[in-house]
Amino acid sequence: MDKKIGWIGTGVMGAPMCGHLLDGGYSMSVYNRSEEKTRDLVKRGATACSGPKEVAQNSDVVFTIVGYPSDVEAVILGEGGVVEGLSNGATIVDMTTSEPSLAKRIDESAKSKGATALDAPVSGGDVGARDGSLAIMVGGDRKVFDAVRPMFELMGSNIAYMGPAGAGQHTKMSNQILIASTMIGVVESLLYAFKAGNDLNEVIDVIGSGAASSWSINNLGRRIVKGDLNPGFFIKHFVKDMGIALDEARRMNLALPGLALSHQFYVSAMAVGLENLGTQGLYKVFSNMNGIDDM
Amino acid sequence: MDKKIGWIGTGVMGAPMCGHLLDGGYSMSVYNRSEEKTRDLVKRGATACSGPKEVAQNSDVVFTIVGYPSDVEAVILGEGGVVEGLSNGATIVDMTTSEPSLAKRIDESAKSKGATALDAPVSGGDVGARDGSLAIMVGGDRKVFDAVRPMFELMGSNIAYMGPAGAGQHTKMSNQILIASTMIGVVESLLYAFKAGNDLNEVIDVIGSGAASSWSINNLGRRIVKGDLNPGFFIKHFVKDMGIALDEARRMNLALPGLALSHQFYVSAMAVGLENLGTQGLYKVFSNMNGIDDM
Repeated sequence: MDKKIGWIGTGVMGAPMCGHLLDGGYSMSVYNRSEEKTRDLVKRGATACSGPKEVAQNSDVVFTIVGYPSDVEAVILGEGGVVEGLSNGATIVDMTTSEPSLAKRIDESAKSKGATALDAPVSGGDVGARDGSLAIMVGGDRKVFDAVRPMFELMGSNIAYMGPAGAGQHTKMSNQILIASTMIGVVESLLYAFKAGNDLNEVIDVIGSGAASSWSINNLGRRIVKGDLNPGFFIKHFVKDMGIALDEARRMNLALPGLALSHQFYVSAMAVGLENLGTQGLYKVFSNMNGIDDM
Repeated sequence: MDKKIGWIGTGVMGAPMCGHLLDGGYSMSVYNRSEEKTRDLVKRGATACSGPKEVAQNSDVVFTIVGYPSDVEAVILGEGGVVEGLSNGATIVDMTTSEPSLAKRIDESAKSKGATALDAPVSGGDVGARDGSLAIMVGGDRKVFDAVRPMFELMGSNIAYMGPAGAGQHTKMSNQILIASTMIGVVESLLYAFKAGNDLNEVIDVIGSGAASSWSINNLGRRIVKGDLNPGFFIKHFVKDMGIALDEARRMNLALPGLALSHQFYVSAMAVGLENLGTQGLYKVFSNMNGIDDM
């Protein structure tokens, strides 16, 4: 517990994750663009800072979990950013789902200052963040990972070292690519069942336990049937993630037509104002397309 | 056990399913187009018949599980078929994955002879057939289902009554539609991981236990990584099933672009001679398309 920790980004995910480190006895410096989101953590003993640079000046390990890759870049590499305040031997851990190529640039930038970096995106959503049961997929140097691991263990239950800088982000991209097409299957199978006159919950009872089973059909499929399209995981963030995956795939000369199709339908969800629904809101795009008012 | 049972179609699925009814103490009449596939069942006490009509003449309940809808139609509705030999009060149970509309025609044809029909496709594959652990999705009259249920229970562990004639087949279509897009997600997420330089089994370890998890990634994804493309479930049969689902969807004025995309890639698998691989053989279509020799 002798290490001083910094935390930047105290939103729906970041606040409970940061809270677990506080509960674990670490001394914490925190910053968030909207200052009021740090107040509860400050009451619990964290020190508020004026910006990313100040957080870095006070810390041995700086965690970031913000919105978009542009935010990651600004907060870490930008003017007044983490790198400017970084001490020799310190570590940056970016837990935002972001670009693998940006993770590599952050790694290089940290090393140029005698510091190190990890990319460590998570899955498990706000529930996993609160429960400390996140999956954490980590890229960077193995020794750095080993040093940060005790902190990851306060936040997650499935901590995986995946390889060099960017490997954590790449793993998260595989996760999102898998979900992208699975969600189309969920929505289409339920719409088919609806049009065919089957009872949707009875259909999920049968198909949700065999070779067609998935977390998506058994959790998000059930929510669709209940008419619950709340996030969960926002459509606007999923569109961001799929965009990153498509860009990276294009860079690697990899054609992924299923991902591209799913991305297009989720972009359509954005176009008709569904960006703040959960990913299961995709069903609205498909039901509208098929002239179905309500299931 | 006073009911006499007929069984038509003793292939990889049908033979063990029929065997469970024999073991359950039923008196069985059997027929298969290739006669040698009934020999083992005959040794165990079943009576060989010369054709579907003779099976029906000897039986109170006639089960069929054959290849394609054209086979179902020939065996049940064709010349020398089941309907010609059906007694008043008998029941036809078609367990082939086949067309919902054909299931309705069989139901009508049976009723015109004072008999009844159920459509009862299964999922769980050859392993489920051998273990008696199939999921069985049943359409038809509820009273008829109740009467046949003790026989289903010898073959399956998840027996679901879904609604009127065709509802069982429709449920199986929902199952296949869900698998169709999920398989694209599996193949694309693994190809992305491969190109990104991640270890594929380590990636499945992480993404296979959270919001991206599915039976397909944890079973067929692992087989892809091992280079095991054996069936499981044949690509040629999956192409048949998706074709039925697309036809039915078109009849219902339902656009399913994800299913259509998956169908096209599986047709491509047929085009390049992969029809006898398991459905995980889809990875070959996507790896060839991306100039990847081997993962």
